[in-house]
Amino acid sequence: MPLIQVQMFAGRTPEQKRNLVRALTDAFVQAAGSTSDAVDVILTDVEKSDWAQGGELFSDKALGG
Amino acid sequence: MPLIQVQMFAGRTPEQKRNLVRALTDAFVQAAGSTSDAVDVILTDVEKSDWAQGGELFSDKALGG
Amino acid sequence: MPLIQVQMFAGRTPEQKRNLVRALTDAFVQAAGSTSDAVDVILTDVEKSDWAQGGELFSDKALGG
Amino acid sequence: MPLIQVQMFAGRTPEQKRNLVRALTDAFVQAAGSTSDAVDVILTDVEKSDWAQGGELFSDKALGG
Amino acid sequence: MPLIQVQMFAGRTPEQKRNLVRALTDAFVQAAGSTSDAVDVILTDVEKSDWAQGGELFSDKALGG
Amino acid sequence: MPLIQVQMFAGRTPEQKRNLVRALTDAFVQAAGSTSDAVDVILTDVEKSDWAQGGELFSDKALGG
Repeated sequence: MPLIQVQMFAGRTPEQKRNLVRALTDAFVQAAGSTSDAVDVILTDVEKSDWAQGGELFSDKALGG
Repeated sequence: MPLIQVQMFAGRTPEQKRNLVRALTDAFVQAAGSTSDAVDVILTDVEKSDWAQGGELFSDKALGG
Repeated sequence: MPLIQVQMFAGRTPEQKRNLVRALTDAFVQAAGSTSDAVDVILTDVEKSDWAQGGELFSDKALGG
Repeated sequence: MPLIQVQMFAGRTPEQKRNLVRALTDAFVQAAGSTSDAVDVILTDVEKSDWAQGGELFSDKALGG
Repeated sequence: MPLIQVQMFAGRTPEQKRNLVRALTDAFVQAAGSTSDAVDVILTDVEKSDWAQGGELFSDKALGG
Repeated sequence: MPLIQVQMFAGRTPEQKRNLVRALTDAFVQAAGSTSDAVDVILTDVEKSDWAQGGELFSDKALGG
């Protein structure tokens, strides 16, 4: 506790994920107050063929998000 | 905003997913009021071996859901 | 199964929610194939002071979403 | 209704998952009151490279969780 | 890790919730293997006016779920 | 897209929430690559009587988390 869950497009490298969980944890501790050890982060990759905005899948858009 | 998240059995075709996100977005706009562009939809496929009802996995049931 | 979860700004009337769950259920059945009875919908109201886009809470934006 | 969602490290066997959904369903019925048939359980496997505690991915820790 | 999230109708007593989190945690440890301390449980109360099955809110059904 | 969902103990001030969504958004943009405008953050307050670790509600623990 706390728990940070991230849904994002698939494709980040292991190094980006490593940096991301560190950065999100630090951001939480500094802005909201907590100890770093108490922060859980779960990352979920979502394919562009499973995410839509405005009723259109990102896999169908000319420019991905 | 708003965000519609769907968990369903795996196996829908790309065309079914395309139609689904369109239909859910239209349904939201018409029933609850919003602009289409503001609606995000995220689809998550769940295997029958990961979903249970009545304490029994759907992969173990004679008739799937 | 399936499960549709909606997060949206608080403030919809009971009648809007009634129409919304009906419309989302119908949309799912028609687009993805299922029986109506199998569809669960859970609505979650989110305050504008708990939802941000672009790093800014909607409660702080001149124009809400 | 109710709905129990579990996020856990990947790697459980089909038999462990079978026992888990049965045990969680029984626990809910006995402790909170409901019929077994009304209980849905959804299991989600999370890779250690997608779960962090204390800002560090479990895949980077000497001892996994 | 693991994380168990429960969505259920509002109205359980504090004692029922206390028993529920204990029972779910024990169920997980025995069926899936883990230490008790590693298990997080988050309970979410859902009003019957926010949960639908078959396109109808439970608050509108003759018999609640 | 992306979507960051935070569950944390209730009690943060509006100013802490304002800083938190800004800090999480900046962290995502810098570590994972995205535009700030594309990042949604949803905050959910959880009461200590609804969150357990090790089978015990935080409201029952001598020291809260």
